[in-house]
This record gives sequence, C-alpha cells and structure tokens, in this order.
Amino acid sequence: MSSLNHTALVTGATGYIGTKLCERLLAEGWNVQVITRMQGRQLSEALQERVISHTYDGSTDSLVTAITKAQPTVVFHLASLFIAEHRTEQVTELIASNVLFGTQLVEACVRNGVRFFINTGTSWQHYRSDAYDPVCLYAATKQAYEDILDFYADAFDLKVITLKLFDTYGPDDPRPKLLNLLLRALETGEPLGMSPGEQQIDLVHIDDVTKAFSLAAHRLILKENRREHERYVVATRDPISVRDLVAAISEASDKTLDVTFGDRSYRSREVMKTCLAGDWLPGWEPLSISTQRIKGLIG
Amino acid sequence: MSSLNHTALVTGATGYIGTKLCERLLAEGWNVQVITRMQGRQLSEALQERVISHTYDGSTDSLVTAITKAQPTVVFHLASLFIAEHRTEQVTELIASNVLFGTQLVEACVRNGVRFFINTGTSWQHYRSDAYDPVCLYAATKQAYEDILDFYADAFDLKVITLKLFDTYGPDDPRPKLLNLLLRALETGEPLGMSPGEQQIDLVHIDDVTKAFSLAAHRLILKENRREHERYVVATRDPISVRDLVAAISEASDKTLDVTFGDRSYRSREVMKTCLAGDWLPGWEPLSISTQRIKGLIG
Repeated sequence: MSSLNHTALVTGATGYIGTKLCERLLAEGWNVQVITRMQGRQLSEALQERVISHTYDGSTDSLVTAITKAQPTVVFHLASLFIAEHRTEQVTELIASNVLFGTQLVEACVRNGVRFFINTGTSWQHYRSDAYDPVCLYAATKQAYEDILDFYADAFDLKVITLKLFDTYGPDDPRPKLLNLLLRALETGEPLGMSPGEQQIDLVHIDDVTKAFSLAAHRLILKENRREHERYVVATRDPISVRDLVAAISEASDKTLDVTFGDRSYRSREVMKTCLAGDWLPGWEPLSISTQRIKGLIG
Repeated sequence: MSSLNHTALVTGATGYIGTKLCERLLAEGWNVQVITRMQGRQLSEALQERVISHTYDGSTDSLVTAITKAQPTVVFHLASLFIAEHRTEQVTELIASNVLFGTQLVEACVRNGVRFFINTGTSWQHYRSDAYDPVCLYAATKQAYEDILDFYADAFDLKVITLKLFDTYGPDDPRPKLLNLLLRALETGEPLGMSPGEQQIDLVHIDDVTKAFSLAAHRLILKENRREHERYVVATRDPISVRDLVAAISEASDKTLDVTFGDRSYRSREVMKTCLAGDWLPGWEPLSISTQRIKGLIG
C-alpha cells in the first residue's frame, strides 16, 4: 500500500535499527521526522538531509511541541537505553530513558490526537519462561513501560503494537554485538576467547526487522488490529547456538575463526534458550540466518 | 512474636497509613526509621520524637546512604504519589515518585544486604478485570513498579510482598476521601451533591491495614513465604455501595445526611465493582465496616 501523505515520527533514529527503519520508511514514501536528545548521538549524514528533527530536552513540553508540529500518523518508538548488567549509578538513567521518556511521549501523543503507536520490547523480558521473567533491569523497564502503554491504549483512542526484538544483525552494523566481533576476528585473524558457546541466539536480519515495523504501522492504519495493544515477536524461531554460528561463519568464509570456547564464563543470567512463544505479525516471514546471508555480511 | 532488635525503614511515613504503621511498629517494639523527601510533608509530632529520619534528595546515593546507616531488617515502601486523573504536566512527577524512587530504593537495598521488602499496590490496578487493567496512570505506575520488583526479587537475595490496598479509613484521617466528606457533612449539616452512588467501595479499617503490613514483615522474617514476590489483597471482600454507606452512617448517627444522589456524574473510569480476586495474607482477617465501627469514627 502507498505510504504517501503518511508522517512517521521515529525515536531512536540515531541507533542502528532506527537508522535502517528511517531509510525503509523514506523508501516507502513516508514523510519521516525524528525526535533526538539534546546531547545525544547524531543522525547519519544521509538522514540529516532527508528528515525533520525535533529535540527532546527532558521535559514533556518538548515532546508536546514535537508532536504538535509533526502531526504524525504513526509514532515508532525505538529509543531505549540498553544496559545488560547495570550498576547502581545507572538506575536513574535507565528509568529516565526506558520509562519516563516513553510515558511523556505517549502522553504527548494522546493529548494531540495521535492514534497509532509502535513500541519496541525485548526477548530479554523472558529469561527462562514464556511469561514475564526479566533477565535484567533493562528488560524489567521494558515490561514496566508496556504496562503504562496498556493504560493509554485502554483509556484513550490509541492503538499500540509492541514488537519484541530478539537479536538483530545486518550490514553496516556498528554495535559491539557477538556476530560483529566474530566478523572482525575473521578479518583480522585475531584469536577470540569465548564462553562455552552453548547458548542460543535468534538472529533476525535488519531487513526483516524494519519490515516488521512497517507492517505493524500498516496494520494499525488499515485497522486490522484485533486488540488495543497487540504484541508480536520479531524472531525467526530458528535459533542457533553460538558454537554453530562460529561454524557457519567459518563455512561461509572458507576461513577458520581462531576461537577458544570456554575461555570466559557465561554472563550472569545468560539466556541459554531463546523464547519460542509469541506470534509473528500477520504477513511477516523472516528468513533464518544462512550461509548466503553470512556471505552477504562478509561481502 | 517479638520484634525486638528488628529495624523497620518506612517510606511514606508522613502520610496517613505510613503514620499509623509507624505507630504500630513502635508499639510492637521495632526500631523505626523513615525516609522523607527534602521538601515533603512533616512527620507527625509524636513520630518526630521517636523515629530516625533519613533524607531523600532525588539521588540514588542518598538512599544508599540511608540504607547503609539504617541497616533495616525490613523496608516498608508506602510512599507514592496518588493522582486519580492526571494532567500532562504531572507525568514526570508520577514516574519519579512511583517508579524511579522505588527503583532507587530497592537498588540501594539489594546492594546493601537488605533481604525483606514490603511494597504497596492498589486495587485500581484492576479496573474491570481480575487481571491487570489499570484505572489510571497512577495505577499503571504501580504495576510498572511491581514488574521492576520482580526482577530484583529474582536476581538478588530479596523477598518481596506486595500488599494491594483498597479503600482505607480510620480515626484522625485527614485525607479528603468520601467517608471523611460524609462524616464532615454529618457534623456541619451541609448538603452534599453526589454521584448516583451505585459504585462499590471496599473499606478496610486502618488497624487491619497496618496489621497486614506487620504480618507481611513477620512472614518474610520467619521465611514463611512461598515465592520470592508474593502479592496479597488488603480488602474485606465485603464491599458496600456508596448509597448503602450513606444509609449506614445515618443509621449509626441517628441523623440524616443531606445527600443528593445523581447531582454529579460518575468520575471517568469510575470503578463500579471492586475486585474480589486475590488472596488474604495468612492469619489476616479484616472486619467489614459496621455500625459499630462507624460509631467509633463519629464518637
């Protein structure tokens, strides 16, 4: 369907997934606007020329101003502060980034007639259980925010979809994630000491990830949602162990990675098995990671 | 059981329930300490002389200092900001009071060896459903905070009980609650315009409320809890309609209240039927509101 005349307002647009989402939305014909923090990261150069930026200064007012100016059809809320193992001094910024900012944002939305809101959750809300079972404080703040969205979706004319992200990967990914560390080690030939490597990860390609956000938006615009706050997993449901991933990279590259398994211990509260519960967004069919896709990353 | 040598650290001690809880704990032999905000309300005069006060200045550090000094056996977390229908400019303080402060507090607890934590929830987390279904943003922030406590209870050596409060009443209650408005109208004879009055309230006497907190603390100390985060309702499960309450007050006082039902409309998202789900704390048996108890308030 055409996205002409639709305005997307994206938070987290300076991050990897947010950048790629903005690029997809622009390609689909959306008018793309973003909200960035006063002293946060910069937008990519390509985006700086093509999107309108609004600034968040910590106040609800600054978001009301942004929403009033942008008049978005859909808000895509991707901004979050990810901390796997928090320190005491990081509690305040975790709540500010992952609960307060989002609450101010959705408040500004409902008071200004925005009706469609896409939120971003994490598989880490499910440590050992399909029910809520947070790996870390970061994951708990994500769950806390979903509860707050439940209120807004019920009390106001706002439809919400939360997309639960698992692991994500793709070209140009600057994040210090495992797959990127492995690809770098492949290039440099440097040895890599790792955990025993039996833990699973569910790797979703960035094109599939951004497609999920676009599909979710269209689902709301076309009124195909069945509930006021729907939740979908952005997972291939075809997880791979870290050991198998290392083997797959070696196979795709015809080089052997110099990896020592068991050189490090697992992280405290390491997720060993990825959550297999939850529904896919209707019409969304991700591809599993494959030799083909790994070759695409090695270029 | 004896509470000698046990230290209670209470938040919300300047409020009605917190004040009465401190009085009970002192009577039971606890060493009572409190955390108050820098520019918040004052403790009652009676408490000022009998408890040690620590100050919260907005920082996690100030709570770490308080916990380190107090070395509490049990933390009783009653502080919260109650707003029935919030305005946009109140979002930041609702999150700060009901999510951030509590997270900083429990963080300070687990980093300093506190093992027992009593939290306060609200029946308003259940608007029309026994499951989570928030009446208002206040209730949503309470649910959000329970999610965060789930993480701390699971990841650290901390046992938590959340007590879900319904309506509460008792002597010396300065809060502008319905029952107090009715008692005042009884005294002054002034007419009172009310809603149609068919909504239920579940009124729990302050003595039963503070007893629930004390029982919950002993349950944790005696390791009688079965889960890391237990939840109990502080409800009589014998709700009364507002109309019947007005009749009961007239009966207990032998005076007729000058009340016009239907003079006002119900609040938006008025709770018409109170939640009847949830367990009572073992050993806790509240008394329903009765002519006797109403006479005690008038007396």
